[in-house]
Amino acid sequence: MEGIEIPTDVVARRIEALGRVGLLPEGGLYRGVYTPEWAEARAVVADWGRSAGLEVREDAVGNLWLRLPGSEPGPAIVTGSHIDTVRNGGKYDGALGIIAGLTAVEALRARFGRPKRTIEVLATCEEDGARFRSRLWGSRAILGIIGPDEPDAIVDAAGVSIGEAMRQMGYDPARIPEARRADIGAFIELHIEQGPVLQASDHQVGIVTVVTGLTMAVAEVTGRADHAGTTPMDARRDALVGAARMILAVRRAALAAGRPAVATVGRVEVWPGGSNVVPERVRFTVDIRHTAGAELRRLQDRVERACRRVAWNCGLDLDFKVVSSTPPTPLDPALRRLLVDLAGQLGLKFLEMPSGAGHDAAWLGRKFPAALIFVPSQEGRSHSPREYTPVDKIIPGITLLAAALHRLAY
Amino acid sequence: MEGIEIPTDVVARRIEALGRVGLLPEGGLYRGVYTPEWAEARAVVADWGRSAGLEVREDAVGNLWLRLPGSEPGPAIVTGSHIDTVRNGGKYDGALGIIAGLTAVEALRARFGRPKRTIEVLATCEEDGARFRSRLWGSRAILGIIGPDEPDAIVDAAGVSIGEAMRQMGYDPARIPEARRADIGAFIELHIEQGPVLQASDHQVGIVTVVTGLTMAVAEVTGRADHAGTTPMDARRDALVGAARMILAVRRAALAAGRPAVATVGRVEVWPGGSNVVPERVRFTVDIRHTAGAELRRLQDRVERACRRVAWNCGLDLDFKVVSSTPPTPLDPALRRLLVDLAGQLGLKFLEMPSGAGHDAAWLGRKFPAALIFVPSQEGRSHSPREYTPVDKIIPGITLLAAALHRLAY
Repeated sequence: MEGIEIPTDVVARRIEALGRVGLLPEGGLYRGVYTPEWAEARAVVADWGRSAGLEVREDAVGNLWLRLPGSEPGPAIVTGSHIDTVRNGGKYDGALGIIAGLTAVEALRARFGRPKRTIEVLATCEEDGARFRSRLWGSRAILGIIGPDEPDAIVDAAGVSIGEAMRQMGYDPARIPEARRADIGAFIELHIEQGPVLQASDHQVGIVTVVTGLTMAVAEVTGRADHAGTTPMDARRDALVGAARMILAVRRAALAAGRPAVATVGRVEVWPGGSNVVPERVRFTVDIRHTAGAELRRLQDRVERACRRVAWNCGLDLDFKVVSSTPPTPLDPALRRLLVDLAGQLGLKFLEMPSGAGHDAAWLGRKFPAALIFVPSQEGRSHSPREYTPVDKIIPGITLLAAALHRLAY
Repeated sequence: MEGIEIPTDVVARRIEALGRVGLLPEGGLYRGVYTPEWAEARAVVADWGRSAGLEVREDAVGNLWLRLPGSEPGPAIVTGSHIDTVRNGGKYDGALGIIAGLTAVEALRARFGRPKRTIEVLATCEEDGARFRSRLWGSRAILGIIGPDEPDAIVDAAGVSIGEAMRQMGYDPARIPEARRADIGAFIELHIEQGPVLQASDHQVGIVTVVTGLTMAVAEVTGRADHAGTTPMDARRDALVGAARMILAVRRAALAAGRPAVATVGRVEVWPGGSNVVPERVRFTVDIRHTAGAELRRLQDRVERACRRVAWNCGLDLDFKVVSSTPPTPLDPALRRLLVDLAGQLGLKFLEMPSGAGHDAAWLGRKFPAALIFVPSQEGRSHSPREYTPVDKIIPGITLLAAALHRLAY
């Protein structure tokens, strides 16, 4: 592995090139799955793959595969990430994993020639769920776990189903099962951390141990609508005052549990929403995460109990519903050990750490050995035009990725 | 005045009849100004007026005037309220004042014949601002204080200007100044309390001393958007957590000031509003009311200072803007004394009380002697389909109104 060079200028140029696709006038990118911008980004990556002499193909849902065939048979070694972005997203989330994989594979071939095992660079078609709530559509297609009703059932904000969106792009939803793969020996994803830990602790790379479990709950608080001018303060049942107490209780519960517990209220709706009406009803989301399943359930219980206590004390009704629950997903222990060993050999300052966000690696890891490498995110910025990592802070991560691909495929 | 009888069945029938105009499928009424439902309600009232032998006319903005000419010249004695409703409003808010005025005038004429002074029943075209933020359009037209730019500048949610809405109903915005009147000797409005005080204290009528002053402020809290999964609790600048503290501080400030101080956060918007994003920005309204100007300013200062303290402590930015400020409006002292005297003579259990809500009487009271009579609201319900006052709890108020009109006009 000594002597492999990841060309900084190529990486920088590719980040900028892909970062121009889907630019919004108000700032940031949007490449929702099956939009023209998404297709354009895929074309850019496909061109890069062809120029690099890789075999380029897309599967039935639009995942893009750039293939460097190995000299021996056997399951492929795969690297990559997603090509879609959230609305007003940045240039690094997803895109960097594709660029890293492609650049690493080119460097390996330049230095070591044809691998024994086939290596593929994967651009999954959808991970971020910005257009459809399709939950890792690309990775789930590869796993073969997309339900037959999903193409019609999942719709975007304009009412277009994901099946219809596929057809508009020339894909046939009936063929989704063809995207399923069984011949993947390992999947290694490189991604920005999307959090502040690596930068703050001055580490060059993160080697992810586990992808956090996530419970999503929706709380609906009901009090009584009253005229804001004529109802004395002591005669109100103000749903918003109750919700405000709950929001603070959610935060306290997560703080008390300590890192890596997090709990977030991100969306709030208030009815009737008139400036001169005491709120009757407030609905808010609670996003609760922990890397340990038992701790996650405990935190979820604490959050719910705290909200119920507030509702009782304030004379409010509370409907608290868990709408989804994903258990923590440990990454593959053997691949993790490999990354730790290689990082040590490369002299990298690395941190073994959990991932607070979901990733393609977590889903593909349900069936295939998977690993996840983080590079720092400046100030933890993510899902924002201000998402940024200087290219020299990216190279160590790509070097580690290349070393791992080398070990697995050569 | 002895022997005057307000016919309960007529009042009940009229409440029901007007309460069917503008019924929404989901419950409650909507009679936004210059809508077909609004026009239909006006037609119902005009019919009643004609059947009662009153002279019916409308002015340039659509205020409806039902006139019983007096035998002597001089300014008219006017009673009434507004015919528009909020969305999902009830049958009593506004409508009851028109019905009360008409029924009182009919009863007076039946008993005493032609008055010396002209009496007019007024249905103002717009008070509740549900379609346009037009702020007592009808009363302001009578006062002659609608600005020449307002017809084009004030638009509804669909982008239709109030001037355009007028034209669609056959009114000419250029003629608004013609609605101005100078010849009003007194205005007495009957209205539901819209609060719980009269019912809870078992009073039959309220005689309003002052209409509360109102400061409307908008607070905008800015923190930092972060990924809900990857940003530790102790590394966040969560605008919603700050806003929740401020909402509780607003309530505490009003409670500490004591009755009749009230402060309400009724509208909250959160950006970006994703369930998995730490909120970057929260905007909320603060409605602050007091019947004494100095106390109102003090409470407003306390609310703002409390919010600034929270912002400072949480490392958040705060923009706190007062968007409108209406000072308390005392009702006419002589008319109040008259109502108190008459209520005593009639043996009514009455309460002198402030009004927490704005009313046509408060605006017309800027130029003409004005008085405001409250009847109880069941459980204080208002701006709701559940708005309700049993008709026998209404009759005392109408009797007092009739007595006052009698004293002023006969």
